[in-house]
Amino acid sequence: MEQAVVEQIVKQVLAKLPGQLAMGIPVGVSNRHIHISSEHMETLFGQGYSLTKDKDLKQVGEFAAKETVTLVGPKGVLAKVRILGPVRKITQIEISRTDGFILGIEPPVRDSGQIEGSPGIVVAGSKGAVTLRQGVICAARHIHMPAADAARFHVVDGDRVVVTIPGARGGTFANVLVRVHPNFRLEFHLDTDEANAVGLKNGNFVTLA
Amino acid sequence: MEQAVVEQIVKQVLAKLPGQLAMGIPVGVSNRHIHISSEHMETLFGQGYSLTKDKDLKQVGEFAAKETVTLVGPKGVLAKVRILGPVRKITQIEISRTDGFILGIEPPVRDSGQIEGSPGIVVAGSKGAVTLRQGVICAARHIHMPAADAARFHVVDGDRVVVTIPGARGGTFANVLVRVHPNFRLEFHLDTDEANAVGLKNGNFVTLA
Repeated sequence: MEQAVVEQIVKQVLAKLPGQLAMGIPVGVSNRHIHISSEHMETLFGQGYSLTKDKDLKQVGEFAAKETVTLVGPKGVLAKVRILGPVRKITQIEISRTDGFILGIEPPVRDSGQIEGSPGIVVAGSKGAVTLRQGVICAARHIHMPAADAARFHVVDGDRVVVTIPGARGGTFANVLVRVHPNFRLEFHLDTDEANAVGLKNGNFVTLA
Repeated sequence: MEQAVVEQIVKQVLAKLPGQLAMGIPVGVSNRHIHISSEHMETLFGQGYSLTKDKDLKQVGEFAAKETVTLVGPKGVLAKVRILGPVRKITQIEISRTDGFILGIEPPVRDSGQIEGSPGIVVAGSKGAVTLRQGVICAARHIHMPAADAARFHVVDGDRVVVTIPGARGGTFANVLVRVHPNFRLEFHLDTDEANAVGLKNGNFVTLA
């Protein structure tokens, strides 16, 4: 091949690179965790208790607390399950299917907040326990997007999209919920089963199909 | 729409159905397990020991043994890990990434038999233990095919194909190894992380993309 042609090809490839990189969506792997109401928090840790921040999460205002709880299911126990703050109106527990097998419950795959009819569980803290009637789900994988990114990807809040995972263990995940909010930071959230299945880790990138 | 046209459409749809179903590949979810050499088996269970069949697997000649072992990793332990028989020349342990986190090891994704450079582990039985220098892998997902099915799907031994998973948590898995052998029964093997990530269970069906 002529030198000039090689240079043209190299130039074209390099010109495409920034665009390709810009279309990458950072991966955030969600380990099992609990969002807790202030009422349940006081039952578990004592009256007037408030959460202690361990570290900020990527989504603005959200943080991992120092406090953890123990989940007690009909078949098994999961200890040191992290509380994510701030407190919410309703307690919601997000676990993987694998966690469900350990506990002996079969939570449905649901978007956050959709806990109607989901299984309950016993949650224990350092000062007490609550028996939830419902609230355990497998969180449906989703993408947090600020409005500018939504425009760039040509999607709107509530869309379901296909995410492409690169690599030897790659593939696609269908029906990924897009959530758009001014405060969101661009991030693809999936659980540990999903991440392990396709070889993704925090800081990896995926793209829309 | 005219009655005659509706009938034509219904007839066409029904005509396609058997073909669609025939192209389905049954799913076999592999839980963590060990293939063991006769030498290691004798160390673990006693001299002259032989495996006791618990139940036949779908692949001809393979069986789940009544015997289990305990895996002892640097960070954790997995008990009651099933032995799959018959005995093999080389001991090989197949676990999920999730299992790897529990044990504190990071096995590579490999095709069966490719254990060079993989991590080792301590394996304990009822009469003794062995310290493996290597042999723990995440088995790469693969499809067992008899020759007739390979012809039908237009693939040959060693091909990598894309598998489509139906359902709300569906998607695709890329780079799925095709293994063709006269004794094989048609079956898509994947591990528990992969099955849980896309909502597959034993007896479900997938298709080639």
